[in-house]
Amino acid sequence: MSTDVKAQQERAATWFRDLRDRICASFEVIETEMTGSEPARFQRKPWERAGGGGGTMALMQGQIFEKVGVNISEVWGEFSPEFRKQIPGADVDPRFWAGGISLVSHPTSPRVPAAHMNTRMIVTTKTWFGGGADLTPVVALADDTTAFHGALKTACDGYDAASYARFKAWCDEYFFLPHRGEARGVGGIFYDQLASGDWEKDFAFTRSVGLAFADIYPTLVRRRMREPWTDAERQAQLVKRGRYVEFNLLHDRGTKFGLATGGNVEAILMSLPPHAAWT
Amino acid sequence: MSTDVKAQQERAATWFRDLRDRICASFEVIETEMTGSEPARFQRKPWERAGGGGGTMALMQGQIFEKVGVNISEVWGEFSPEFRKQIPGADVDPRFWAGGISLVSHPTSPRVPAAHMNTRMIVTTKTWFGGGADLTPVVALADDTTAFHGALKTACDGYDAASYARFKAWCDEYFFLPHRGEARGVGGIFYDQLASGDWEKDFAFTRSVGLAFADIYPTLVRRRMREPWTDAERQAQLVKRGRYVEFNLLHDRGTKFGLATGGNVEAILMSLPPHAAWT
Repeated sequence: MSTDVKAQQERAATWFRDLRDRICASFEVIETEMTGSEPARFQRKPWERAGGGGGTMALMQGQIFEKVGVNISEVWGEFSPEFRKQIPGADVDPRFWAGGISLVSHPTSPRVPAAHMNTRMIVTTKTWFGGGADLTPVVALADDTTAFHGALKTACDGYDAASYARFKAWCDEYFFLPHRGEARGVGGIFYDQLASGDWEKDFAFTRSVGLAFADIYPTLVRRRMREPWTDAERQAQLVKRGRYVEFNLLHDRGTKFGLATGGNVEAILMSLPPHAAWT
Repeated sequence: MSTDVKAQQERAATWFRDLRDRICASFEVIETEMTGSEPARFQRKPWERAGGGGGTMALMQGQIFEKVGVNISEVWGEFSPEFRKQIPGADVDPRFWAGGISLVSHPTSPRVPAAHMNTRMIVTTKTWFGGGADLTPVVALADDTTAFHGALKTACDGYDAASYARFKAWCDEYFFLPHRGEARGVGGIFYDQLASGDWEKDFAFTRSVGLAFADIYPTLVRRRMREPWTDAERQAQLVKRGRYVEFNLLHDRGTKFGLATGGNVEAILMSLPPHAAWT
């Protein structure tokens, strides 16, 4: 591995850690605002991967955030023969490095949308970025959808003029439950194998996506968290979360990949909601 | 299709329907016993399959049975090229017929075990039976486990001396969550491609499994349904149900097969619990 790539890995891993700290702190501020005494705090739990590397889970179960997980990981090793053909650049040399941040928020209030954000850098004989952010309200509120997409569009526009439309369409296609014939939520952006040839530009975009999410999502939480809700809305939320479970266990590639490659089960399944219902 | 096979299909389909009626009636009696007025009743909903045949879902949401589904189906058509190689006898001729009954019970009380029972007859150029029954308590109670296995053993012993040990081991192997390293419940029996060459004998066994379940499960429900339970037991039940969801969406072959072949989504996912939790 070249000195350049090594330095890139360190910068990316440092960024994912810093972003985790920033987001966790801002979510804790929200819990503090809403709670008189002893507000909830993130509990961190490190894990190690047998094949190399590991990560840290951060989980908070609060009043506003019924369950929110923010995981970072930095892992390395060799892809099994099964995966060598599927992963770009791994057919030449099976060694890989992967670093990233993954966040799933399941708010208590059915008026506050659930959210997911993930960005990652992968290195084989090639180097690329992937990730995205998407919003899953119980009932879509146009203001929230517009604000969320607007923030992500600004991040994309800083990269190039075509990327928002492309990454938005990719998100709509990916976060879809074929057996239900319905979208998981109101979308956002999704991208993979981002490698323009200019690593600095791609890394700057990765940071922009993280910062856009870190700014807009707490804004939406604050906008809705004091609104009263009904039992019917809560029940609708639990059913919507059931759909979230179906997507993650039936379709999500990251979940399947993680479980198939012996990843940390607790970290992978931290995305599942605290409570869900099926009628 | 020979006149003999046609007659066998009719007898099997009639049996699955009769067993459904018997089980639903006995579960409704339990609801009546526990409820002063307006006890819950099964709601039946027929569905049709585009490729041929269909089924009837029966769903009850009661005081004792928080959610219980009893589905029967009788479907026919042609296997897609993808499935012709996987299904015995379908490589010669892709036409098939399948009839069966499938039951999943999620009781309200964490003291009452959840249960699953399914038996089916499949016809391609070959004819066979498959099915089983298994119990999923929150906390295994030795008396219940012993009684449940005892009832199934009696059914198996009427078939032959070796089948209980074989079908019990098959159940333990099948209802296992590899990513959690834990069993779904306390087992029961599981069998497939049962075709001894004596259809009458195999059909009699299928009926015995259904009758054994129809007798022992209401017995266990009555044994436990008046026991008080704690909030901690209810929470443990919701988490246990989360594991049930993980098994059905990640591993269950029937669920995957049904969704992949365009089965009735509502009927397939009726197995999911009314509420589940992930910590």
